[in-house]
Amino acid sequence: MEALKRKIEEEGVVLSDQVLKVDSFLNHQIDPLLMQRIGDEFASRFAKDGITKIVTIESSGIAPAVMTGLKLGVPVVFARKHKSLTLTDNLLTASVYSFTKQTESQIAVSGTHLSDQDHVLIIDDFLANGQAAHGLVSIVKQAGASIAGIGIVIEKSFQPGRDELVKLGYRVESLARIQSLEEGKVSFVQEVHS
Amino acid sequence: MEALKRKIEEEGVVLSDQVLKVDSFLNHQIDPLLMQRIGDEFASRFAKDGITKIVTIESSGIAPAVMTGLKLGVPVVFARKHKSLTLTDNLLTASVYSFTKQTESQIAVSGTHLSDQDHVLIIDDFLANGQAAHGLVSIVKQAGASIAGIGIVIEKSFQPGRDELVKLGYRVESLARIQSLEEGKVSFVQEVHS
Repeated sequence: MEALKRKIEEEGVVLSDQVLKVDSFLNHQIDPLLMQRIGDEFASRFAKDGITKIVTIESSGIAPAVMTGLKLGVPVVFARKHKSLTLTDNLLTASVYSFTKQTESQIAVSGTHLSDQDHVLIIDDFLANGQAAHGLVSIVKQAGASIAGIGIVIEKSFQPGRDELVKLGYRVESLARIQSLEEGKVSFVQEVHS
Repeated sequence: MEALKRKIEEEGVVLSDQVLKVDSFLNHQIDPLLMQRIGDEFASRFAKDGITKIVTIESSGIAPAVMTGLKLGVPVVFARKHKSLTLTDNLLTASVYSFTKQTESQIAVSGTHLSDQDHVLIIDDFLANGQAAHGLVSIVKQAGASIAGIGIVIEKSFQPGRDELVKLGYRVESLARIQSLEEGKVSFVQEVHS
């Protein structure tokens, strides 16, 4: 998605060979118009897949997921990373290991909002080692729902998350695929469009 | 806002005289079309106020704030409740006391995304005791920005948050004002429309 790649080039800050900071339009400040375009793009790629629900994770997945849900006309459920007083019943949970924080944490979705009739599109802001995506996949499967695919705003293709998900048979649609952050520069995977 | 009130009546769960659970469309599952209508309503109420930025707080404020930002054509910044590795520089912080959790926590916004040239609309999902709103007000003022008003999706009018903010001179626009949750029933404040 060219508009996203240009935004990353213009505003992304390469903090290290591993870390790209996009706090000006996705992870802290949000560009609503770009989120709408991202939502339209995900909706277009999954338009014929019979999606009934989008599952994402707080906080940075919410904006792209809601814009996708608006376009597809389906609800969005966001997994919680932190305990909520009113989120208590019928919890589906998964452990997610954070390589950056080096901590294991629980994510949770109420089973009330996912059923075995659902065909789910999982959306997240970043895909790196794939821990959050695997956690969301686990939760969706616990509900007995099926998975149409995984939509990622920014993929760090030099980390193993994508390949592992693809090997497991999941369709991964990433709107910007980063080949490398070396030498302080963002290089994208060259994709051949059919 | 009648569509929101009907949704609360149909899907809200009164957990006690103090707590209303709206996990089916706002706090856990999100109804994107309703969020768009909420965004349109906030945008309409603040259309002539010269808003340059929207400030909200993760996670449930994000969806209504982004829809409002989309309509007004301005960026959204969400305050973080939890430490982020990439959010480090130039932090504006405030302490927020949670009556429900009985804990004090820090919220933070990077000063990079707020300036003394900004005229801010603060948006949040709930207004009860007003602690989160006061925290956001403090952060916006630390940046030297001015505040156009505070947009609230659901106000618990029987708690003191609104009155305190109005006494301090802030304009509070709440789309659904709840008079009482007694006897397991949602009663709205009767408003006279001019």
